[in-house]
Amino acid sequence: MDRVPYAELVAECSRVLEARGFAPQRARLAARVFADNTCDGVPSHGLNRFPGFVRDIDSGRVDPSAEAECVGSFGTLEQWDAHRGPGVLTATAAMTRAVELARESTIGCVALRNANHWMRAATYGLQAAAAGCLAVCWTNTTRLMPPHGSAEKRIGNNPLCMAVPVPDGDTVLLDMALSQFSGGRTDLLRRSGDSFPVPGGYDEEGRLSTDPGAVRRSGRPLPIGHWKGSGLALCLDLLATLLSGGLATWQIALDGAAIGVGCAQVFLAFDLAAIDDGDSAAEIVAAVLADFGSATPLEGERVTYPGQRSAETRRLNMAEGIAVDAEFWAETRRL
Amino acid sequence: MDRVPYAELVAECSRVLEARGFAPQRARLAARVFADNTCDGVPSHGLNRFPGFVRDIDSGRVDPSAEAECVGSFGTLEQWDAHRGPGVLTATAAMTRAVELARESTIGCVALRNANHWMRAATYGLQAAAAGCLAVCWTNTTRLMPPHGSAEKRIGNNPLCMAVPVPDGDTVLLDMALSQFSGGRTDLLRRSGDSFPVPGGYDEEGRLSTDPGAVRRSGRPLPIGHWKGSGLALCLDLLATLLSGGLATWQIALDGAAIGVGCAQVFLAFDLAAIDDGDSAAEIVAAVLADFGSATPLEGERVTYPGQRSAETRRLNMAEGIAVDAEFWAETRRL
Repeated sequence: MDRVPYAELVAECSRVLEARGFAPQRARLAARVFADNTCDGVPSHGLNRFPGFVRDIDSGRVDPSAEAECVGSFGTLEQWDAHRGPGVLTATAAMTRAVELARESTIGCVALRNANHWMRAATYGLQAAAAGCLAVCWTNTTRLMPPHGSAEKRIGNNPLCMAVPVPDGDTVLLDMALSQFSGGRTDLLRRSGDSFPVPGGYDEEGRLSTDPGAVRRSGRPLPIGHWKGSGLALCLDLLATLLSGGLATWQIALDGAAIGVGCAQVFLAFDLAAIDDGDSAAEIVAAVLADFGSATPLEGERVTYPGQRSAETRRLNMAEGIAVDAEFWAETRRL
Repeated sequence: MDRVPYAELVAECSRVLEARGFAPQRARLAARVFADNTCDGVPSHGLNRFPGFVRDIDSGRVDPSAEAECVGSFGTLEQWDAHRGPGVLTATAAMTRAVELARESTIGCVALRNANHWMRAATYGLQAAAAGCLAVCWTNTTRLMPPHGSAEKRIGNNPLCMAVPVPDGDTVLLDMALSQFSGGRTDLLRRSGDSFPVPGGYDEEGRLSTDPGAVRRSGRPLPIGHWKGSGLALCLDLLATLLSGGLATWQIALDGAAIGVGCAQVFLAFDLAAIDDGDSAAEIVAAVLADFGSATPLEGERVTYPGQRSAETRRLNMAEGIAVDAEFWAETRRL
């Protein structure tokens, strides 16, 4: 491990990008993202990925001169097309615009399509927090994990970021892929002969395992929990409290009241009709669910999307009468 | 288990609520929520909780006549005060208004404070989906789980709902508390002598455990993963794809391209200054983090909020030079 001054890291990456046709300002902005990610202790999404990023440019997979463009304006939501430009630049442009929209309507949203890898989700959360915004951003990815109940990969690990400015200038900054361990960390541990600190997936016999090699062989990494679930819980509390002006988790039930008395709730709705030309939304959802449902179930399991089982139960209950616990039904009738 | 027709369940619950001072229309709306939740196979948040809900009314903890009220209007975000009215009614009113705001600006948000238990998060997701909206809603709760790295409860289990209309009239409906197993399910399994199907928390010796009794004794339930992480990943993909008009997970890399090429990203910003009178946001965040950080660390652990460690690393790297992997640094300099 060497130590390099920040300015030198930025200058070196800028030089490489300018040589590949990046305009000087764009080269410097992209170089800063790689340097910042390295500086924050995330070299896997900084310097260590820089040579690969350059290979993507050299191979034509990333177009150095492509810029994100607004292709649809729907009130406080805009759709942009990244035209497969450098992911760190198109994501920065998208969050810049989301903050501008938020200045007008309190909430701003840019949904960006046709984008390339943005490296580290936290970059854009930090950007928004520095502008005084709460931020939520995420990206989808290709199929990296099996749905629960299958061993076949169908879902992305879809990194999610939530950012809340902290008074001291820092940021509560949730940045997590939805797999408990990334492929990179899994391979690192496998090479070093170390185990996962908690189960990271299933082995080929379908048992939870802390062996990185076994999880690679089975192709069944586990979705999030542990510190990631813990961080998500904290961020949802902060967002609900700040947006509503209500009580935070630590204040609820201080007076000995029951769970969930005096809590804060957030209701966020996106009007699908406003952005949907014709039946495209229905087609998109049907295709996603068809792919999801095509994962072969493990023995004794079903692969169902969230809500599918309760809908089946509802139909059964409406047809045959609602299954009720006799004790609670009797108690209700006596009330 | 008995079976009761839907109409009878609604009528019976309505009768009880009218007798406690609910106006007939409000009694019927609340009764329908309890009946629907039971009908969907979630009696723990339907009929089985109805007698307890009535006790909360009788004890004065829930005010049957209190209605949610708009107390702040900030563009497409409104703050409402639930005045501790019946949680199922104030939440329904809040989502109704969020959908109205979404009709005007594509995104609508109501942040509700001073609310009582809304029973089942899915109720409000279904409501929005029926109105043609994508929805995200959540509530905070009192302290129910330890942060990762501690055995002391500091974080809520903050149920989160995401809803996406499905062409056939059903809904992709993620509804999950952020603990892997609810307290209710834990106690149910403990009484029946069954185990958790996957580790549900730690035992008193700090080992992951599938024994519900051991987790109750340690007070250390685990945050989400498994089917909950799997469902969250699917929903983030659907939202990103629908909002951006971009490629879904199943389509990305169909052409053999690398992970994250041609993906869809969402950038959502909430302008904190618009809703913040003075320093209150800073004070709220500081108080939440002070409570979070007051959880005693387990031996060899630290309790840090998301982003805290990377900020420490950043300061160190800026002061002493950025730690870089010698190999990647050399490769970059050769580019």
